[in-house]
Amino acid sequence: MSVTDELLANNANYAQSFTGPLPLPPAKHVAVVACMDARINVYGVLGLGEGEAHVIRNAGGVVTEDEIRSLAISQRLLGTKEIILIHHTDCGMLTFTDDDFKHSIQRDTGVKPAWAAEAFSDLDEDVRQSIARIRNSPFVPVKDSIRGFVFDVATGKLNEVV
Amino acid sequence: MSVTDELLANNANYAQSFTGPLPLPPAKHVAVVACMDARINVYGVLGLGEGEAHVIRNAGGVVTEDEIRSLAISQRLLGTKEIILIHHTDCGMLTFTDDDFKHSIQRDTGVKPAWAAEAFSDLDEDVRQSIARIRNSPFVPVKDSIRGFVFDVATGKLNEVV
Repeated sequence: MSVTDELLANNANYAQSFTGPLPLPPAKHVAVVACMDARINVYGVLGLGEGEAHVIRNAGGVVTEDEIRSLAISQRLLGTKEIILIHHTDCGMLTFTDDDFKHSIQRDTGVKPAWAAEAFSDLDEDVRQSIARIRNSPFVPVKDSIRGFVFDVATGKLNEVV
Repeated sequence: MSVTDELLANNANYAQSFTGPLPLPPAKHVAVVACMDARINVYGVLGLGEGEAHVIRNAGGVVTEDEIRSLAISQRLLGTKEIILIHHTDCGMLTFTDDDFKHSIQRDTGVKPAWAAEAFSDLDEDVRQSIARIRNSPFVPVKDSIRGFVFDVATGKLNEVV
């Protein structure tokens, strides 16, 4: 049995106690941008219930064009107003450089990615970079509450970056 | 008190019973790509525990360059091998067209996004499109288990797209 099959069996259990449907727009008018890291259970970390917040995640929790697209749709079409950014300690993005990663792909496949890998060497600085990218975008209209945090994978706490 | 402050108070509760740190690589060697929709609690839907799977999310759960970047990092650096794609019923991406959305941004800001909004009109077809984009990428090395589902927001069930 694959892991996917095992998780589908879990889903059958989940559905047994599920009550829906909830409304489409997030009830708390919040969008979260977080790293894809397996240790960040965003609903648990923030005490979110189903239907309350958009959750956008990628390698690093960085803001690239696709996060701007998602935030634009979140705010313009579905009414979110606050943005929460979450990076975390012990992040994989601290362990390599863009150049090394892209050269290793080129060695293995013959093709060098045209995109940035978005590795970083300073967590707080990269949270600030993500905030700056949102502030600099004309496509995200509501910028009154954009706050950035580093999740501590040892303690479960969010520490705000200022 | 902002919603962000309220969620930070929730985090203080979460941290009280938190035990960490767990290892960085996902224990179940799975990466999930899901829509950012507030009603999809990925850890709940799949019965995942902290530390088990990478979770990548955006508007639609579509595969763009940034999801390829995240999947490349997930597989090449952190050892994931299976990919689970999750779209869902009642998706916001079914309610507009790229042209209308981009023109509305252009009207409001004077700037037309250079990116695609990635709206779609058929859920199953867009899941297949996302799978096709992964299969077509040289940067995602492991393609043995790529399965796509539509989450039913009324029942909580994942239905596989074939």
